[in-house]
Amino acid sequence: MHYSSIRAALHIASVFAIYLSLAMLIPAAVDLYFGNDDWRTFAFSALFTGGLSLGLALATQGRPPPISSRFGFLLVNLLWLTTCVVGAVPLLASSTDLSVADAFFETVSGITTTGGTVLVGLDGLPPGVLLWRSILQWMGGLGVIALGLFVLPFLNVGGFSYFRIESSDMGDRPFERFSTYTTSLIAIYSLLTLICGLCYAAAGMSSFNALNHALTTISTGGFSTHDASMGQYAGNLAILWIGTIFMFIGALPFSILILLAVAGRLDALRDPQIRVFAGYVVAFVVAVAVYLRVSTGMPFTVALSHAAFNFVSIITTTGYASQDYTLWGPFAVGCAFAATFLGGCSGSTSGGVKAYRFLILYKLLVNGLRRFVYPNSVASVRYGDRPVDDTVQRAVVLFISAFVVIWLIMTILLAATGLDLMTALTGALTSLTNVGPGLGDQIGPSGNFANVPDSAKWLLSLAMLLGRLEILAVLVIFTPAFWSR
Amino acid sequence: MHYSSIRAALHIASVFAIYLSLAMLIPAAVDLYFGNDDWRTFAFSALFTGGLSLGLALATQGRPPPISSRFGFLLVNLLWLTTCVVGAVPLLASSTDLSVADAFFETVSGITTTGGTVLVGLDGLPPGVLLWRSILQWMGGLGVIALGLFVLPFLNVGGFSYFRIESSDMGDRPFERFSTYTTSLIAIYSLLTLICGLCYAAAGMSSFNALNHALTTISTGGFSTHDASMGQYAGNLAILWIGTIFMFIGALPFSILILLAVAGRLDALRDPQIRVFAGYVVAFVVAVAVYLRVSTGMPFTVALSHAAFNFVSIITTTGYASQDYTLWGPFAVGCAFAATFLGGCSGSTSGGVKAYRFLILYKLLVNGLRRFVYPNSVASVRYGDRPVDDTVQRAVVLFISAFVVIWLIMTILLAATGLDLMTALTGALTSLTNVGPGLGDQIGPSGNFANVPDSAKWLLSLAMLLGRLEILAVLVIFTPAFWSR
Repeated sequence: MHYSSIRAALHIASVFAIYLSLAMLIPAAVDLYFGNDDWRTFAFSALFTGGLSLGLALATQGRPPPISSRFGFLLVNLLWLTTCVVGAVPLLASSTDLSVADAFFETVSGITTTGGTVLVGLDGLPPGVLLWRSILQWMGGLGVIALGLFVLPFLNVGGFSYFRIESSDMGDRPFERFSTYTTSLIAIYSLLTLICGLCYAAAGMSSFNALNHALTTISTGGFSTHDASMGQYAGNLAILWIGTIFMFIGALPFSILILLAVAGRLDALRDPQIRVFAGYVVAFVVAVAVYLRVSTGMPFTVALSHAAFNFVSIITTTGYASQDYTLWGPFAVGCAFAATFLGGCSGSTSGGVKAYRFLILYKLLVNGLRRFVYPNSVASVRYGDRPVDDTVQRAVVLFISAFVVIWLIMTILLAATGLDLMTALTGALTSLTNVGPGLGDQIGPSGNFANVPDSAKWLLSLAMLLGRLEILAVLVIFTPAFWSR
Repeated sequence: MHYSSIRAALHIASVFAIYLSLAMLIPAAVDLYFGNDDWRTFAFSALFTGGLSLGLALATQGRPPPISSRFGFLLVNLLWLTTCVVGAVPLLASSTDLSVADAFFETVSGITTTGGTVLVGLDGLPPGVLLWRSILQWMGGLGVIALGLFVLPFLNVGGFSYFRIESSDMGDRPFERFSTYTTSLIAIYSLLTLICGLCYAAAGMSSFNALNHALTTISTGGFSTHDASMGQYAGNLAILWIGTIFMFIGALPFSILILLAVAGRLDALRDPQIRVFAGYVVAFVVAVAVYLRVSTGMPFTVALSHAAFNFVSIITTTGYASQDYTLWGPFAVGCAFAATFLGGCSGSTSGGVKAYRFLILYKLLVNGLRRFVYPNSVASVRYGDRPVDDTVQRAVVLFISAFVVIWLIMTILLAATGLDLMTALTGALTSLTNVGPGLGDQIGPSGNFANVPDSAKWLLSLAMLLGRLEILAVLVIFTPAFWSR
């Protein structure tokens, strides 16, 4: 690792921090509009972090370093970390009385689009704070799509390289292509947010709540403006279905949404990961809805609406809840636990193991079992009509193995802070998969993370960041090879 | 799959069943000696199953089929299944009033050396029944060592092929080598059992209890003759340490114990998996002992004895308990959960993921992370001083991935039978790893499986068999390739 790489990474991170500081002026304006004194906090935070970032950006100016995967990993980790630190400043300074651990946890939960919260009394918080949380998730969602589409493919992490966009659809010159592509991404993401918000408003949400929930729905984030989360609208099935549809869209690969919107390529929807994702979503939703109908006698349309909303929320790693589904009976709880692993598609805003990994794993398993019977058979692993190269296969199984090991270690560490086993193991899991709520009394869908010890909040923040950066992209920073010259 | 293969596999399974039927005469003799009427049950069961098996053996006589991996897989699955069915007959017929699901569960838990029980009032059961349970575990332990040393290596399952014995130590002619080797194995296994039993007796157990516990200690089985398990001897630290030492030995690779005993090869102990296994045993035991000392004020020697006994019991997948360690506080419970995954060495009586898989996984991870930084570097994965070939690497990661997926599916299915999440997920886990007790009130170290629904008992039996046969060796049976001609 050369000094110039660290300097350049700091420079880019500082420039990002300047933009983030500017974004603080939005909640400042909103608080000012509503006549809330917290506008000063946001304005001051913007000035403070913006000034510091500007200073650091100027101090670290220089020639760009040679592009290398090491620089990529350094930049990705640094960007996510500095964004979380900077984003926490207004929360720390605000009237919410959060500790440093609280503010950091809340910001990490925002930027990583996890959605677990340490705040109670959300309904009475200043609008600026609520909007800031939503903005963090919206920007985090955009960031993770960009990460999945532009950065991780070139670092060979998480098997994404397979999903590089075919150049033929986007023009010939690389920069122009990238630029068109980025513009399309931001446009589609913003448009979807707008439509989602309008739908929420039309279905009866106040415009402020519609805006906030739109920002955290499309980003599969899950922060709500209510302590009851979407339970606030439990009787309004239209709102639940709007949420269900847009969470589902947020978990689709944005590369494909872009192809669809820009090039009109309907065939892009044939991506095998979409079928797998839709397949397990339908399976879980139907199974739980039938179970709910039978065990509670709830009308089927109501059961289906709640099952769809809550399980799409878990599977897409959003984290809203319209009811406390841990009270639906053991089968629903077992399903909620297993669903926490799943996740959506690659290049989406969702986390978790993700559909394409399950698909490739399944193919590897079938292939491996076939080889036990015919040791000399050589069958290539295929994704759709294309072979999956060895690097991708390796990354998939390494991710899953590392995921399990890190999960167990994190469970032990959380238990050491005094959390009971159910809270520790589902807390570690829900953070690594960026879902949000865990299971058990404390951090379940009707609870929150307010009362876990500070040490646990730091650990959970680390777990959220690990999960968001697909684990391996963080672990690589801790190898000697990474730091050698 | 040819008809002749099925016939031949049935023939071998029948011959095994005849031996198992003969073994029923041991508890018959013991019950007769103690004047217990159950001797008739065992004698009758021996006659009944022995006669049926003999008939089937005669009916399926014929030329041996060509040796193939398919035949190997078929035989292994069939042997384990028929042994469990035959072994359940005397339990079903005995005065214990077990249902079919109960008797099958108990036998599978025995043969797979898992150790979870559906029997309550163990202390008052007829000695024949108690001894039969212990014999099932002892034979199961021997069976799984043989499986790990002689069968799975040639089927390329679970990375065992790497651990084939070097021929130079055992003479030149293959059959003679195999024969010497088998004799050594049985001799060492029996001798260790004898020494263990004598130690238990010397430390104060009655000779009947010493025999039973010796049979279930060396096989890392975990069936006890007391409802309180080894808690019966909680005040006798000598007994706990004897148990600890012999469980540890049972989890060592028997190939190495044979090299040590027959060829005097002390250097064999340098096998890297032994170091990894001993490493995590010491880490867990010391951490939990210190935690116990600090949190309960228990004298350190007592804390260390109980921590060592219970965590060696979990890690070696034995399943004894000397105390209800779920009451030791959240950190101990978190450790117990994580320790349930670990397991001992390959070619031992223990189950779980096992030390060599963790070692290879670690090397794969380090290697993979290095490749992210230097994409063109080619470093081979090494186990000790030898390279690990691609088939073994593949089997390790496939095992771990399949393990996790099967665990989650099993958790959902168990939850569907009405078990709460903690019982379902730790029940599925403890069965797949052949540990025995789970966590939670019902199946924890001070509970048992008596009150889980029958459907759950069948599922747990399946999980124990899957775990015992290293999962992949069972899954292969369900592929079309396996059954094609």
